[in-house]
Amino acid sequence: MDIDTITAISTPVGEGAIAIVRLSGADAINITKKIFKGKNLDEVPSHTIHYGKLVDPETNETVEESMVTVMRSPRTFTREDIVEINCHGGLVSVNRVLELVLSNGARLAEPGEFTKRAFLNGRIDLSQAEAVMDLIRAKTDRAMSVALKQMDGRLSKLIRSLRQELIETVAHVEVNIDYPEYDDVEEMTHHVLIEKTQQVYKQIEGLLQTAKQGKILREGIGTAIIGRPNVGKSSLLNALAHENKAIVTEIPGTTRDVIEEYVNVRGVPLRLVDTAGIRETEDIVEKIGVERSRQVLKEADLILLVLNNGDEFTDEDERLFEATAGMDKLIIVNKTDLPRRLDIEKVKQLAENSLIIETAIIEEKGIDELEQGIANIFFEGDLDTGDLTYVSNARHIQLLKNAKNALEDAINGIEAGMPIDMVQIDVTRTWELLGEIIGDTVHESLIDQLFSQFCLGK
Amino acid sequence: MDIDTITAISTPVGEGAIAIVRLSGADAINITKKIFKGKNLDEVPSHTIHYGKLVDPETNETVEESMVTVMRSPRTFTREDIVEINCHGGLVSVNRVLELVLSNGARLAEPGEFTKRAFLNGRIDLSQAEAVMDLIRAKTDRAMSVALKQMDGRLSKLIRSLRQELIETVAHVEVNIDYPEYDDVEEMTHHVLIEKTQQVYKQIEGLLQTAKQGKILREGIGTAIIGRPNVGKSSLLNALAHENKAIVTEIPGTTRDVIEEYVNVRGVPLRLVDTAGIRETEDIVEKIGVERSRQVLKEADLILLVLNNGDEFTDEDERLFEATAGMDKLIIVNKTDLPRRLDIEKVKQLAENSLIIETAIIEEKGIDELEQGIANIFFEGDLDTGDLTYVSNARHIQLLKNAKNALEDAINGIEAGMPIDMVQIDVTRTWELLGEIIGDTVHESLIDQLFSQFCLGK
Repeated sequence: MDIDTITAISTPVGEGAIAIVRLSGADAINITKKIFKGKNLDEVPSHTIHYGKLVDPETNETVEESMVTVMRSPRTFTREDIVEINCHGGLVSVNRVLELVLSNGARLAEPGEFTKRAFLNGRIDLSQAEAVMDLIRAKTDRAMSVALKQMDGRLSKLIRSLRQELIETVAHVEVNIDYPEYDDVEEMTHHVLIEKTQQVYKQIEGLLQTAKQGKILREGIGTAIIGRPNVGKSSLLNALAHENKAIVTEIPGTTRDVIEEYVNVRGVPLRLVDTAGIRETEDIVEKIGVERSRQVLKEADLILLVLNNGDEFTDEDERLFEATAGMDKLIIVNKTDLPRRLDIEKVKQLAENSLIIETAIIEEKGIDELEQGIANIFFEGDLDTGDLTYVSNARHIQLLKNAKNALEDAINGIEAGMPIDMVQIDVTRTWELLGEIIGDTVHESLIDQLFSQFCLGK
Repeated sequence: MDIDTITAISTPVGEGAIAIVRLSGADAINITKKIFKGKNLDEVPSHTIHYGKLVDPETNETVEESMVTVMRSPRTFTREDIVEINCHGGLVSVNRVLELVLSNGARLAEPGEFTKRAFLNGRIDLSQAEAVMDLIRAKTDRAMSVALKQMDGRLSKLIRSLRQELIETVAHVEVNIDYPEYDDVEEMTHHVLIEKTQQVYKQIEGLLQTAKQGKILREGIGTAIIGRPNVGKSSLLNALAHENKAIVTEIPGTTRDVIEEYVNVRGVPLRLVDTAGIRETEDIVEKIGVERSRQVLKEADLILLVLNNGDEFTDEDERLFEATAGMDKLIIVNKTDLPRRLDIEKVKQLAENSLIIETAIIEEKGIDELEQGIANIFFEGDLDTGDLTYVSNARHIQLLKNAKNALEDAINGIEAGMPIDMVQIDVTRTWELLGEIIGDTVHESLIDQLFSQFCLGK
């Protein structure tokens, strides 16, 4: 168990009015006292904020003005003493404050270490901790809503009640094994086992059914816009991005090579694949369009295949249909303002079950229908995050699948008349797998690995 | 005077653990109360922080978890009531909170409007307000130190004392004019005027002498790395950037076209010009090197001209010397690990007074000397921000120059025996110009324009 005092910059990196350097641990207040010129922080009440100057004790030089918040254990996020130093939000400013805190006894926190302490100190369970990060990375309101509910403990409660049922079943069975003096003991045991395990099985199945939508809400739909040069790919891209405020994320580690662009279409987050490629192909080197399109297909969950209404259907168009056979796609017949030269019957035939939408994107026609079409593919009817508990995390989904399999083994075992103590092993395994979701039965290495995916300062 | 309640996101945009939505104004607490489910914020003491949920009063839906800080007028940055809502630092999360605050009665703040209110409510003067922004944008510790002192009111105090001297001089002269019963009145007046105005003149001159260094500290030295393909431009760039932690800023408004890169060389901020060009020219289209170099010269204050020690001196090299004649430059003879084929005598002759530094950048040789050379060009001896009050802001420099000119007119007038009331006009004008620096005598339109350059949420 860590007991040293950790610190990190908890606000995003960049220019802003305010930045926060956060400390957590038994020495948080002592360390701050060394550099803070203002009230005596030992004497201020918990959960109060104080103006003062930050002074380097070695040089006696004023480093910054600041507002310092003192929050004492245990009523804090980590259940440890927390100090938040609010300073001016420039890059140099906040880094100087961080250096000052480090040189006076704090250790730089690892990514996610604040949340990890909240977990280790029992304030939140593992699925809640994971929801914290999902919430920060949420790309749409709906994704945020799902994360917020998970953080609130909805999924945890459901998992706990399933585990409770399993453990009660096991206990019940054990009682019957230990007291075999009743005649109908074997029949009873089988009866209870079958009923209980099937109940739990159904609930796990129900949760897994929310997984596809949950995962989409969380990670976005990998969407590729493909088509020959000049059919209107970049106009489509701009129309989607402009109307829906694209969120552009740079992948850290590269200077500016890999950029993810998200657009929020009616609550459905589209993660646009290779938009740089599209912009380039149409602007600079149009000729490589089709070849490039093929490459991006691998990453895509959804294809937006664009055709030119004013142009004849070409072999290249046909090859795009072939390359995307069997994939979720929308066919967009663009430039309906031009006289039709496209062989629409041919398109209908190749489209099979895919929706065909007619647009004139430059004239802003058909965009509503297109957006509705995209939303419908993934959310038949209306998506309601109000009632359902969504499973969105890949780790949770995998654990639920494994739990479902283990329980299936148990049920098959019961039906095949396997000895009760063999069945019990599978039920216990299910109980353990569900426990991993909330972190009750989980290895330390997994915990380290999970939290390392967090952002710094959380 | 604005009396409505303003709000903005006060932390940088991006993914982080914490984001802050700040409100300032008479209704700050009332608006927060509408959406905050927790303690009654009317009853909590000032400068305290409270956990609660943010709930949309229209839908009753929980929007976020938050920590809310209440700070009551007048002990706040703006001297108005301030509420800071700390929420999770995701893009969606913080925008939802902002929307919630806006739809419950706050108005979106203009850039710099919080600081503007601090100025209008008399908490800080104009030069202090400008220092707030300089501090946020500071690229090095020294620049931050200059801004911090200005924010602390050092420059303001100096300007106030100069104005005081001028106003006393004018008053003294007026007394003498009004009571001309003494014989030596005219002589006395001239004597006092000459002495006092020359004192102030010298101090203004002294301030202006800090301007060049101050401006460099604040804005960075526009630095161009030029040279033929393959002489090692991008290695030099990487060496400087790597050793000194480059700060890369994207210019807002463009997607990713214009990127400013800063490196901090011994406290001197270099603003590297066209680094994208360098990376491109060496990686992709090496041939356009020299042509591109010519273009970037226009923007540069400092030239780093790189030559290849292992290559003969070419006409292209000579043309680069011609193009940079008379500019501040360092000549870098790179690749000293190769046998010398470069005509070093020719280089020395063309270099004139510029320093020639020998490096083998890939082998990490000569980089120390190079950095020292850069620092020496702009800061002969050691730069000490400890004592001096630096003037770094272009607006302040211009006003000081104008004040100096007006005072020069006054001094010339006195020496030419001009009527005292004519001289007095120039002295009063000097007094007014100095007043504009701290915002005592300044037009409202200027104030609006100044604060509009601030970042949002400050």
